[in-house]
Amino acid sequence: MREIAVFSGSAHPGLAAAICAQLGLEPRSARVSRFANDCLEVRLPANCRERDVFLIQPIVAPVQENLVELLLMCDAARGASAARTTVVLPHFAYARSDKKDAPRISIAARLVADLLVTAGADRVLAMALHSPQVHGFFSVPVDHLHALRELAAHFRHGDLTNTTVVAPDLGYAKEAARFARLLGVPVAAGAKERFPDDRVVISSVIGDVSGRDVIVLDDEIAKGSTVLELLARLRERGAASIRVACTHGLFAGDALTRIGDQDDVLEIVCTDTVPIPPGHRHAKLTVLSVAPALAEAIRRIHNGESVSALFDT
Amino acid sequence: MREIAVFSGSAHPGLAAAICAQLGLEPRSARVSRFANDCLEVRLPANCRERDVFLIQPIVAPVQENLVELLLMCDAARGASAARTTVVLPHFAYARSDKKDAPRISIAARLVADLLVTAGADRVLAMALHSPQVHGFFSVPVDHLHALRELAAHFRHGDLTNTTVVAPDLGYAKEAARFARLLGVPVAAGAKERFPDDRVVISSVIGDVSGRDVIVLDDEIAKGSTVLELLARLRERGAASIRVACTHGLFAGDALTRIGDQDDVLEIVCTDTVPIPPGHRHAKLTVLSVAPALAEAIRRIHNGESVSALFDT
Amino acid sequence: MREIAVFSGSAHPGLAAAICAQLGLEPRSARVSRFANDCLEVRLPANCRERDVFLIQPIVAPVQENLVELLLMCDAARGASAARTTVVLPHFAYARSDKKDAPRISIAARLVADLLVTAGADRVLAMALHSPQVHGFFSVPVDHLHALRELAAHFRHGDLTNTTVVAPDLGYAKEAARFARLLGVPVAAGAKERFPDDRVVISSVIGDVSGRDVIVLDDEIAKGSTVLELLARLRERGAASIRVACTHGLFAGDALTRIGDQDDVLEIVCTDTVPIPPGHRHAKLTVLSVAPALAEAIRRIHNGESVSALFDT
Amino acid sequence: MREIAVFSGSAHPGLAAAICAQLGLEPRSARVSRFANDCLEVRLPANCRERDVFLIQPIVAPVQENLVELLLMCDAARGASAARTTVVLPHFAYARSDKKDAPRISIAARLVADLLVTAGADRVLAMALHSPQVHGFFSVPVDHLHALRELAAHFRHGDLTNTTVVAPDLGYAKEAARFARLLGVPVAAGAKERFPDDRVVISSVIGDVSGRDVIVLDDEIAKGSTVLELLARLRERGAASIRVACTHGLFAGDALTRIGDQDDVLEIVCTDTVPIPPGHRHAKLTVLSVAPALAEAIRRIHNGESVSALFDT
Amino acid sequence: MREIAVFSGSAHPGLAAAICAQLGLEPRSARVSRFANDCLEVRLPANCRERDVFLIQPIVAPVQENLVELLLMCDAARGASAARTTVVLPHFAYARSDKKDAPRISIAARLVADLLVTAGADRVLAMALHSPQVHGFFSVPVDHLHALRELAAHFRHGDLTNTTVVAPDLGYAKEAARFARLLGVPVAAGAKERFPDDRVVISSVIGDVSGRDVIVLDDEIAKGSTVLELLARLRERGAASIRVACTHGLFAGDALTRIGDQDDVLEIVCTDTVPIPPGHRHAKLTVLSVAPALAEAIRRIHNGESVSALFDT
Amino acid sequence: MREIAVFSGSAHPGLAAAICAQLGLEPRSARVSRFANDCLEVRLPANCRERDVFLIQPIVAPVQENLVELLLMCDAARGASAARTTVVLPHFAYARSDKKDAPRISIAARLVADLLVTAGADRVLAMALHSPQVHGFFSVPVDHLHALRELAAHFRHGDLTNTTVVAPDLGYAKEAARFARLLGVPVAAGAKERFPDDRVVISSVIGDVSGRDVIVLDDEIAKGSTVLELLARLRERGAASIRVACTHGLFAGDALTRIGDQDDVLEIVCTDTVPIPPGHRHAKLTVLSVAPALAEAIRRIHNGESVSALFDT
Repeated sequence: MREIAVFSGSAHPGLAAAICAQLGLEPRSARVSRFANDCLEVRLPANCRERDVFLIQPIVAPVQENLVELLLMCDAARGASAARTTVVLPHFAYARSDKKDAPRISIAARLVADLLVTAGADRVLAMALHSPQVHGFFSVPVDHLHALRELAAHFRHGDLTNTTVVAPDLGYAKEAARFARLLGVPVAAGAKERFPDDRVVISSVIGDVSGRDVIVLDDEIAKGSTVLELLARLRERGAASIRVACTHGLFAGDALTRIGDQDDVLEIVCTDTVPIPPGHRHAKLTVLSVAPALAEAIRRIHNGESVSALFDT
Repeated sequence: MREIAVFSGSAHPGLAAAICAQLGLEPRSARVSRFANDCLEVRLPANCRERDVFLIQPIVAPVQENLVELLLMCDAARGASAARTTVVLPHFAYARSDKKDAPRISIAARLVADLLVTAGADRVLAMALHSPQVHGFFSVPVDHLHALRELAAHFRHGDLTNTTVVAPDLGYAKEAARFARLLGVPVAAGAKERFPDDRVVISSVIGDVSGRDVIVLDDEIAKGSTVLELLARLRERGAASIRVACTHGLFAGDALTRIGDQDDVLEIVCTDTVPIPPGHRHAKLTVLSVAPALAEAIRRIHNGESVSALFDT
Repeated sequence: MREIAVFSGSAHPGLAAAICAQLGLEPRSARVSRFANDCLEVRLPANCRERDVFLIQPIVAPVQENLVELLLMCDAARGASAARTTVVLPHFAYARSDKKDAPRISIAARLVADLLVTAGADRVLAMALHSPQVHGFFSVPVDHLHALRELAAHFRHGDLTNTTVVAPDLGYAKEAARFARLLGVPVAAGAKERFPDDRVVISSVIGDVSGRDVIVLDDEIAKGSTVLELLARLRERGAASIRVACTHGLFAGDALTRIGDQDDVLEIVCTDTVPIPPGHRHAKLTVLSVAPALAEAIRRIHNGESVSALFDT
Repeated sequence: MREIAVFSGSAHPGLAAAICAQLGLEPRSARVSRFANDCLEVRLPANCRERDVFLIQPIVAPVQENLVELLLMCDAARGASAARTTVVLPHFAYARSDKKDAPRISIAARLVADLLVTAGADRVLAMALHSPQVHGFFSVPVDHLHALRELAAHFRHGDLTNTTVVAPDLGYAKEAARFARLLGVPVAAGAKERFPDDRVVISSVIGDVSGRDVIVLDDEIAKGSTVLELLARLRERGAASIRVACTHGLFAGDALTRIGDQDDVLEIVCTDTVPIPPGHRHAKLTVLSVAPALAEAIRRIHNGESVSALFDT
Repeated sequence: MREIAVFSGSAHPGLAAAICAQLGLEPRSARVSRFANDCLEVRLPANCRERDVFLIQPIVAPVQENLVELLLMCDAARGASAARTTVVLPHFAYARSDKKDAPRISIAARLVADLLVTAGADRVLAMALHSPQVHGFFSVPVDHLHALRELAAHFRHGDLTNTTVVAPDLGYAKEAARFARLLGVPVAAGAKERFPDDRVVISSVIGDVSGRDVIVLDDEIAKGSTVLELLARLRERGAASIRVACTHGLFAGDALTRIGDQDDVLEIVCTDTVPIPPGHRHAKLTVLSVAPALAEAIRRIHNGESVSALFDT
Repeated sequence: MREIAVFSGSAHPGLAAAICAQLGLEPRSARVSRFANDCLEVRLPANCRERDVFLIQPIVAPVQENLVELLLMCDAARGASAARTTVVLPHFAYARSDKKDAPRISIAARLVADLLVTAGADRVLAMALHSPQVHGFFSVPVDHLHALRELAAHFRHGDLTNTTVVAPDLGYAKEAARFARLLGVPVAAGAKERFPDDRVVISSVIGDVSGRDVIVLDDEIAKGSTVLELLARLRERGAASIRVACTHGLFAGDALTRIGDQDDVLEIVCTDTVPIPPGHRHAKLTVLSVAPALAEAIRRIHNGESVSALFDT
């Protein structure tokens, strides 16, 4: 059996270390240097020849820096004769750009998938892609994990008898329904309306939330505007209590504070697919770790064991 | 300007003829023959050299026959030195297979997109793909039209003051909401539940339908089971009247009869993206033609005019 | 050594079972389902990760169904992280379409070869391709077996002193001569003539058949018209007795009966590369099995042993 | 209409000049220089930008020099922004290597086809490829001409009432039969036998040649051994007179003299697809020119007119 | 003739405007927006269908932002059916990363070349690439301009009788010699030495500079350390006067001030391939424009005229 | 661990034998035959299935023969199911053609790199490529060795106190400086001048050589004209003694005699990357072997050990 070699880019060394700890491996970080002309040079710090190489790099802000760094890592691994290069994407920001909703734009998720393959990625391990179709953008095998199990395990500790899961947007309603089924509770969803002046607002909530303990669920929270708008609608409709959950806690700007400081928000739950700066924490925030899940997937990929057997049930 | 050449496969010659009539062209059908060993041979009936070739072939039942025929047409056009080959897909059945929802299956929509490119397709003109992400499965330019304008024009002739659009499934709720906005009416959606014995049923309707004139909207209707199940839920919730609309009227088996014979279904509306056999009609069925839209798109593609300028507003 | 995994498509489960029996493996069939819109979904029934996967599927009638099914199997194996995918083609019907003998047609054998590679085939194990050049249509390694040894072994049991091998067509004369050399007997061939009305008939037999025990040899027999026409010519020239042999016994329609019911045809011999329906048998028909040869080739491919060492002598 | 630009490599400037004369173009030769390290540099002598470039270069001896020169020409045209590059191959020597008849050899015809495409060939104009399947080795469009019309026109000038066409090998019998049909005469063929010591000899002639005026037809004559051997068999069988014809007159070594000096050989006919050195002529040799056919094909390819309309009847 | 469409990315709108002014075109800027998750969306502001599209974007700091923006522009142009997409790279920062001088790093110049082609670039117009071999990293046609003519024209205005051109590094000596030939003056070069502690210093100047009017020439100046070090060596060797010239004036940090404030530096000359912020100017700095050269090259590429005829003499 | 299989082409069997001796393997030569039409057939003489195949073939005169032979070997290895094919290029003549220094020529080094990959090369082991950027022309991993260590070891045996390394051309000055650092001595370089009549001569030597013991160093010596011209300049400048060294001793024509017969040339040193015919030796010539270095690199590549660890220090 060829050896495993796990390298971390500079996007999220903490998660990489946690994954390596699960695997009993020493974490190794790519050596990134920046030339005077702002070009990056990335050097993998250990022999890759005939190794089974895993490169851990969520595509998070600064997105372009982290993306180019990852492309350089892939190419370096290929040039260094890696037997196989698996890109581990705990978060893939460009997955949101998955359709052409305006003329003369790129479907960037497909483009980036192609760029990764051009750079030398042989396979991908992804987590909670924005839509399940993004899987099909890659021309190489993808193992696609979800964090719904981790989130569900967290909420099952509480009383769910009066709970309803609410998706902020109809486009996420199907996934929210899947989560609701895991918890055995009903689902509702916000419906957006586009005004003549191009503003988009959540004008209604489809489904019953009056008097319910609501878990707002989205795949990612960035600026938080959608969530805040949904909270207003939920209050108008008399929701009893509100908790907010997502897989990818991007929390751009002061999103975390703005949501956390709402009195009726009891709790915010996300996972560690995305790094949260220390000064960016909030008392109501709980961060669940996906490191055990990613580590187990890496172990199975390396050993040729079924990944679906574990995660797709 | 190089000449245009439009060829029809054997899947839907009627639509091809209607498109050619709009374009002022003679319809030309590929000559398909079948050898004793069941292999197909497809011969394009006119010079393709340096022509701007359009191949019209919806991927409908018999799907595999029509798909292989289309692949042979693409390859024949390339081998015959077509300047450019555009595949016109009024319906693309495999678009539904757009995600890997079971282990060890193909994401067939992506595979077929790749097969078409391998066979020589330089671009694609598609209509109402099952999900907008399927656009991104193609590595060649795609013009993606919708028939919502045609459907909306039809329904605007009636009184919409008490109307609600209902999607049978949350996965289609976003598209239904877009249609509802075109009509200026609210939206609702059926929510499916998966039972321990793996049965999936529409257990609830999210949003208000009581006393409303409902337009059930889906992208395609095949067996019709989902629609029939939704009708039961709508009755339980006291819908005032029901009309059923879709872009792709596949109507497998006796689906058309089963839906049309429901007393409270006032009307079934679909388009002609899919051929409907003469003996398969129903008194309540209205078929709108997408031939003018497809012809105009072909004309613009051929002339290098913006397609989005016309269709994306 | 990585593990072997052999899967059968739905084209010829009997042959797959025979091959697996030779290899001491449990036969596993792909689970093929058909959606209401006539699309196929194919699920491989066991873990493929890092396995050496073999997919057994002759391309026989219904050709388009079996071909698309095979393409879906290839893509499923790749997506499921197979270490290597070998397509086993006991019969490849499209191999006959190996040249462009009319304008604006596809050289379908090359197209299908490319489609298989696009879908994920890493190598091919083929049997008695219509022409040896078809090997070169594949951009991946091909092991190309012949069944002439099996056929020769059968005929060597009889008296060959007065025997001549006759090819129905000059295009197959070279292969027939190779078979004749295996038996140590002379060769002859039918010569076709194309008439002004485009009819093609066997107008003469080149070589001596008068008073000879003839073995008519072709690579495949489909409708059987060519063979029947040749029989007429052989009678006119006074052939003493006639036996008919081929590798691929397609026997389309009532071909088997039409040939078998000729009084002077003593025997029809083919192999099991193609499934013969139970009700389709004939008392004069002998079916030789290529399962041992294919199984041995699979074993050698899997173990990295020379295939040519065994089969090319 | 973009401009045409025709360049000749150094393999056969005479044919290129003849083609250009037909087209009313000035012949332009690539400037080939050889560095001290034996590497070639090829410079195209005129602007290629957005031109419709044709590169005329038969692959004849010295084959490797001419092939690499052609690859350099293709790449130069691409790098110089040719709109389209058509490789004109009056002879393609590697076409004979079209199957894998020994283990661990290349199917060189397919390899060279791929090399040409890698180097930048967008299409190919070929003449009398060794087997029609070689067409399918190219992944770009091929126009495949034959010289049988030119050869037939030549022989029609004489008396054909007692004539038989004879192929030296069963592998060429089908093509010879096609030629015989053009002349309205019967066909025969030599049959080779491989001896235990690996010698291959023409052991018999299949078909009747006694007292006939024979036209021996092959696609190419190189060493001439096969033809000489066939002549011996024809004499044994009492042929009345012998003429020898081929498309590609390679005449390696003293082949021309050895055949021409046979008393009973009345005439040797070939075309100018291959250059024949001045000192290499023979009194019995007639060289027909394919320049008009190639020029007309180039003109039609350039103008987007059907080539099959002219040549495939 | 298809229309031209020139778009500018956000890296250097000033140069794009100057080029468009030369071409008599309205400058059009891509509309770049940034999502909350830091992903970019780039929208081309005008119809691209069948247009001859030029995308002007130097790869300068912020390099990763500008690179990804350019990749998105390429893909948008392809998806919008551009007839041809030419990437105009007035500066290509990653060209410096043209070799593998440490283990397990990427040859980033080749990688980025491949990424551009993957994203849809059909050709490239580049200016003064760091080494001429970088041209060969692209698999699409490249027109490679130099600014030496512009620089030489500038210096020819002065007295050159006592002038010597000095390259800071032996790796650039050949290019400096070419420039010296344009001016008709001798050349010299700094030689670097690597010390045991890995410091690299210019330890000597090869060639005579004592009492000479020196023009220091490099392809780009970033931090300026090398130039400053060379100045020290030149002073030690008694250079009479010093002027500094380069094509790409990156001037990272306070490089411009540090060089310009040297008393014996008479002048700094660069071109506008790279944007120089207004507050970043220096009294001794002269910026020559390459807009006329790039505009003329674009015009010729669009019209299919020879570019080498103009620039390579 | 899969087995190793090393094959030699016909370019340099002596070096292949020396490498195999180092590896303890039996040398195996490809069986090259030439057909009457001048086409090559190359047969690999032993089983390649699942083997780690190394093909040793310097691209030296006759360059085109050796190149095509190598391409055929690569394709044969792929078709024979090699697990991996590594091309070992002790010399790569086309590496000199690494830039487009005239219009409408190929950058042949890039083209040949692409041809090798098309033919089936999975990786490359190269020695002293003409410029380090040529590494980046390959889309597959390259291990790039230098022979400077071997050359330095040789010269360290003598007295170096008064020694200067001189590059014949500024383009090689950087590499010469690297060699000089290995020896701890200064460097100088010839500077070429192009005259109006296009003659190029070494018009000056940059750096001090008066009274020095000079080692002239180049990567390769072909015709030797540059070296001879440099010798004249060195004498004019009063060099004390002269030795000549290079990696690749091509010695075209009588180059070896012409240099060796110069009285003041004490020694000529090269390596065995290129075969030197027995009758081509000279008393002053020392040939160092790179077989140990190449063998060790092959061993490490096969075993998955770091190559850079050994050679890049």
